[in-house]
Amino acid sequence: MNKKVLIVMGSDSDLPIMQEAAKALEKMGVPSEIRISSAHRVPDKTAQLAREAEQNGFAVIIAGAGLAAHLPGVIAAHTTLPVIGVPIQGGAIQGVDALYAIVQMPQGIPVATVAINGAYNAGLLAAQIIATSDAEVAAKLKAHREEMAKKVEEKDAKLQDLGASAYIKEVLKR
Amino acid sequence: MNKKVLIVMGSDSDLPIMQEAAKALEKMGVPSEIRISSAHRVPDKTAQLAREAEQNGFAVIIAGAGLAAHLPGVIAAHTTLPVIGVPIQGGAIQGVDALYAIVQMPQGIPVATVAINGAYNAGLLAAQIIATSDAEVAAKLKAHREEMAKKVEEKDAKLQDLGASAYIKEVLKR
Amino acid sequence: MNKKVLIVMGSDSDLPIMQEAAKALEKMGVPSEIRISSAHRVPDKTAQLAREAEQNGFAVIIAGAGLAAHLPGVIAAHTTLPVIGVPIQGGAIQGVDALYAIVQMPQGIPVATVAINGAYNAGLLAAQIIATSDAEVAAKLKAHREEMAKKVEEKDAKLQDLGASAYIKEVLKR
Amino acid sequence: MNKKVLIVMGSDSDLPIMQEAAKALEKMGVPSEIRISSAHRVPDKTAQLAREAEQNGFAVIIAGAGLAAHLPGVIAAHTTLPVIGVPIQGGAIQGVDALYAIVQMPQGIPVATVAINGAYNAGLLAAQIIATSDAEVAAKLKAHREEMAKKVEEKDAKLQDLGASAYIKEVLKR
Amino acid sequence: MNKKVLIVMGSDSDLPIMQEAAKALEKMGVPSEIRISSAHRVPDKTAQLAREAEQNGFAVIIAGAGLAAHLPGVIAAHTTLPVIGVPIQGGAIQGVDALYAIVQMPQGIPVATVAINGAYNAGLLAAQIIATSDAEVAAKLKAHREEMAKKVEEKDAKLQDLGASAYIKEVLKR
Amino acid sequence: MNKKVLIVMGSDSDLPIMQEAAKALEKMGVPSEIRISSAHRVPDKTAQLAREAEQNGFAVIIAGAGLAAHLPGVIAAHTTLPVIGVPIQGGAIQGVDALYAIVQMPQGIPVATVAINGAYNAGLLAAQIIATSDAEVAAKLKAHREEMAKKVEEKDAKLQDLGASAYIKEVLKR
Amino acid sequence: MNKKVLIVMGSDSDLPIMQEAAKALEKMGVPSEIRISSAHRVPDKTAQLAREAEQNGFAVIIAGAGLAAHLPGVIAAHTTLPVIGVPIQGGAIQGVDALYAIVQMPQGIPVATVAINGAYNAGLLAAQIIATSDAEVAAKLKAHREEMAKKVEEKDAKLQDLGASAYIKEVLKR
Amino acid sequence: MNKKVLIVMGSDSDLPIMQEAAKALEKMGVPSEIRISSAHRVPDKTAQLAREAEQNGFAVIIAGAGLAAHLPGVIAAHTTLPVIGVPIQGGAIQGVDALYAIVQMPQGIPVATVAINGAYNAGLLAAQIIATSDAEVAAKLKAHREEMAKKVEEKDAKLQDLGASAYIKEVLKR
Repeated sequence: MNKKVLIVMGSDSDLPIMQEAAKALEKMGVPSEIRISSAHRVPDKTAQLAREAEQNGFAVIIAGAGLAAHLPGVIAAHTTLPVIGVPIQGGAIQGVDALYAIVQMPQGIPVATVAINGAYNAGLLAAQIIATSDAEVAAKLKAHREEMAKKVEEKDAKLQDLGASAYIKEVLKR
Repeated sequence: MNKKVLIVMGSDSDLPIMQEAAKALEKMGVPSEIRISSAHRVPDKTAQLAREAEQNGFAVIIAGAGLAAHLPGVIAAHTTLPVIGVPIQGGAIQGVDALYAIVQMPQGIPVATVAINGAYNAGLLAAQIIATSDAEVAAKLKAHREEMAKKVEEKDAKLQDLGASAYIKEVLKR
Repeated sequence: MNKKVLIVMGSDSDLPIMQEAAKALEKMGVPSEIRISSAHRVPDKTAQLAREAEQNGFAVIIAGAGLAAHLPGVIAAHTTLPVIGVPIQGGAIQGVDALYAIVQMPQGIPVATVAINGAYNAGLLAAQIIATSDAEVAAKLKAHREEMAKKVEEKDAKLQDLGASAYIKEVLKR
Repeated sequence: MNKKVLIVMGSDSDLPIMQEAAKALEKMGVPSEIRISSAHRVPDKTAQLAREAEQNGFAVIIAGAGLAAHLPGVIAAHTTLPVIGVPIQGGAIQGVDALYAIVQMPQGIPVATVAINGAYNAGLLAAQIIATSDAEVAAKLKAHREEMAKKVEEKDAKLQDLGASAYIKEVLKR
Repeated sequence: MNKKVLIVMGSDSDLPIMQEAAKALEKMGVPSEIRISSAHRVPDKTAQLAREAEQNGFAVIIAGAGLAAHLPGVIAAHTTLPVIGVPIQGGAIQGVDALYAIVQMPQGIPVATVAINGAYNAGLLAAQIIATSDAEVAAKLKAHREEMAKKVEEKDAKLQDLGASAYIKEVLKR
Repeated sequence: MNKKVLIVMGSDSDLPIMQEAAKALEKMGVPSEIRISSAHRVPDKTAQLAREAEQNGFAVIIAGAGLAAHLPGVIAAHTTLPVIGVPIQGGAIQGVDALYAIVQMPQGIPVATVAINGAYNAGLLAAQIIATSDAEVAAKLKAHREEMAKKVEEKDAKLQDLGASAYIKEVLKR
Repeated sequence: MNKKVLIVMGSDSDLPIMQEAAKALEKMGVPSEIRISSAHRVPDKTAQLAREAEQNGFAVIIAGAGLAAHLPGVIAAHTTLPVIGVPIQGGAIQGVDALYAIVQMPQGIPVATVAINGAYNAGLLAAQIIATSDAEVAAKLKAHREEMAKKVEEKDAKLQDLGASAYIKEVLKR
Repeated sequence: MNKKVLIVMGSDSDLPIMQEAAKALEKMGVPSEIRISSAHRVPDKTAQLAREAEQNGFAVIIAGAGLAAHLPGVIAAHTTLPVIGVPIQGGAIQGVDALYAIVQMPQGIPVATVAINGAYNAGLLAAQIIATSDAEVAAKLKAHREEMAKKVEEKDAKLQDLGASAYIKEVLKR
């Protein structure tokens, strides 16, 4: 059976960002489930989700949170699965608070932190973790890299073809 | 029976700072207990301490933590008692990470945050909370204010007496 | 007689944010009064409000301010009631200036600081303080927690039911 | 054959911090190799290390760097193995520059970032990744968690036994 | 043959900003070429562009990047030509992350950093570098300075003529 | 003859902000002149304006600038008149760069710095300086304070009259 | 009678820094008095000092404070004399908190802010203010500038004479 | 005749850092002169140094400054030679103030900014600029790169030979 990834967020307002993780995983052929479970409002449910994740077939957990973003660390406290934290932009400090609250974990309980709003990369990272023992996912990751490289090459070729001003108007539509 | 204050920290390295809270409380005649219980290393014990605090006779909880300081918020998630958070200075970000991780709590679960390393003030604040229904503690808080004011007056008088240079040498010993 | 909460701000432009504190208190059955009184423009009136708060039946004071936010600390200097400070977002530094000016109080005069724009939590915290000697308010706080938990559960159930894309369209309307 | 972890740093001055990653891995029974290879001074060698890591039996790469910390991102550009980045404290900005330069990776190339100087946690995280397909390492991680929990419990018991002042003197030796 | 300037960016979304560098160079009579080549998505192409820049007739390279902005440093690692880095504003940290990731280069590999979004100045700086051995470009730079000075003088004269309120309405159209 | 205030800015885009200084001065009965003169584009003119300010009847200089805001310090280097600096919000760092570049002057050459975009207060501060030897201006400053206090009192009275919700709708029109 | 300057600080620990203001004033021939009076511990005394400063012969007030540095703003609220604020370095945020709390004053109540720990410049600025109506102080300020310029010239001459290495050894003693 | 580099700083206390620029230049065979000339204390001399630099045979100017670091920008305002700015660490803000004050130059007057305390790299960058028209310097820069690469290789070989613990003891002497 394929390893799955659990995606958790504390508030449904984070869903449009966090859905990008699911999209990245889907592209890499990795199944995922998305749950809303707050570290502060439903702490026992959150602890339970984390504790039971392994036996429920999850290999990696992705948790996104903004402000005093405790969710990834709280989940990491209840499992030894790799936990990926996504700081969510928002509020007056614009996600730097969330970044610090996620990445500065004390010794013993790591959280693999990605960029502020970097949910897509969180999905790719989860796929990379699964790919350490799944050759199919590993192959898809490599193909995805080639596809990204190809797109950059195409854009550069287009730019050489059109010149900067035409590119900005025709391709970027500005 | 007197209301008590529970003082919690995740690591014994925070004890020298957090002990100041107990000292402030003792001055105000408020009994306190100090516990070491990490949000990340012993999450279930921490949740239990928070959940049972009220029935164990505690009226206020003070929690101190550094880095990705989740302890105050995690405790607040498990009780409706007032929770006071003390960001502890340390690490590369010197406690601004802890400040953000404690003060920027999402709607619904407040943490009463004091200054970085402000454990003494956390103790006073806990006493102020208890004093809302305890006239003896209220009287001690007022006396403490007068005592502080008197000390400022004495220092100013001394300075007028000695002049700045002599004051620096004789009183500040610099 | 019920304990009341005094809510103070220096400028009427802070009223839409600070009104959230009154709303949270109302939900918890705690009466409150809202006053406009600037620490800098009417310092004597502000000092008087603070000094007379206790005898006027207030148990807690909530003060909100932006920029060089002195109001909470100035009020705290004139009373031994618990003072809750709300940093207001605004200006070029977006409330981090206000946060520092409120939370970093010197030893002896604490201010219980909440998140930037966290007036709703300030109201809840004031209710938690009053609940230390008022069983009715304590019961309402617990009910409020359960209600918040239930809402998270419902949202999660809805998400499981609809899937992420439909949830974003139908519930979040994006 | 056991999966190995490659630990890379750009300067030997980072070795005392980065060695902690190797120590954590050793505790978890995971073999590792440490290399010095700068993203800026030997870019081709660094690219080669990254490109050949997978075929050389490495499952995870840990890269530590300070200042404009490009090493983790540069390595991640040349492999689809999971790359863990360790921002190293130092210089005038004390590692916040390194944190930003490591964590804020653009879409497509994630780096799993840990705390500033968090090399020990980087080692644990690498072990957690390997444990997703290695039951022995998984078991060691769980034992390590229990051991950490036990130590917290012992410290708390000691504190209850001695009281804070004696604990500070006898245990913390301050 | 005239010395040329190579302008590189990792993403076409940076083109509207980076085009300003080409415009400044054009004004100074310096030919330039613009390329899209990501440090992370096409690392080998980027290395090749940098390595071959000198033999392809380029005297200076301008590289712009946002977020964890590695491109200027990665290019600098592959050439001894002067490399000018332009931090691009964007994301939650608004370009301070890019500034740190570009300017804080370790000893041995400098990047000449300009202001966030300062692509026009990057172009001028490249022209200043070329002008150290090209009298025509040097003369154009001096004329450009005089033209800027004249514009300031004209605006001041206009302001003295109209007064502030009329100037704001008639010239600034606010 | 009345003492005058010289208001300088480097770019006409700062005029809408800096005009507030002239308005505050006008209210206090202090004449002022506004000049556009950049520290970087017309350094000699700027030096001359500063050097001749005293003999031209100016008692105080107000200088506003954004980004790497050198104008106030450069002016202060050429006069011993009091120089007031106004950091202008703008660019990616939103005026914190300008604040640092204005306030952190080295020993020997002070600049009296006001808040980011605080041009109105710069005008009041200039009036306060002039009032140290001009009783009429001093009287106007006191009347201005009373007027401000009265406005706060009126707003508070209105709020007590209307209640918060009606005040927000009727007075703040939100 | 000569105009005097009032120097106030909230804590005697700030005296070694704040004494520099008195030294600068003494050099410029301006008499000063130093007082200890906390905005938080003796708010009424502080208000009285500010209110009575003018009638007591003071023309300028210098106030120094660290952390949530309210003293300069609180004094400014009680007088229309020019108030100069000195942010004092200290605590976890190293004076940036004090800088924000002093400089970001709301409209109507300016504080003339100098650099963190810039008490010497605060003294010079106060002298510059007094010099707007005191030709003797104005002359001393000009002489002081010339003396500073002369010292720079001498150091440069010495450096040309010795060379950098000898200068570092013989003059800087490093 | 060889092109020379002018190295300027405002205070002799910056000499130990700024001397590194001269050392790097010497290694690359580029002659340099070091001058002390403050933007604020001797503004006319500084302007003159900048204005006459070109005719005095200088091709590049390196300027170092701390705090409100205006020197590089002020020099850039008086010349069209490339100006390299070195932010010097120091004071409460540790050089981030100097970095912002140097790098955030407005449009029209670029300063090529290097890392905080990055004087050695400033020297290398100046050599790179001169190398655009000096093949000997260009050759020395390439040799320097190879030498740096060789040192990294040697350290890595030593590390493989000794192992981390022995390397730390024997090579790093910790």
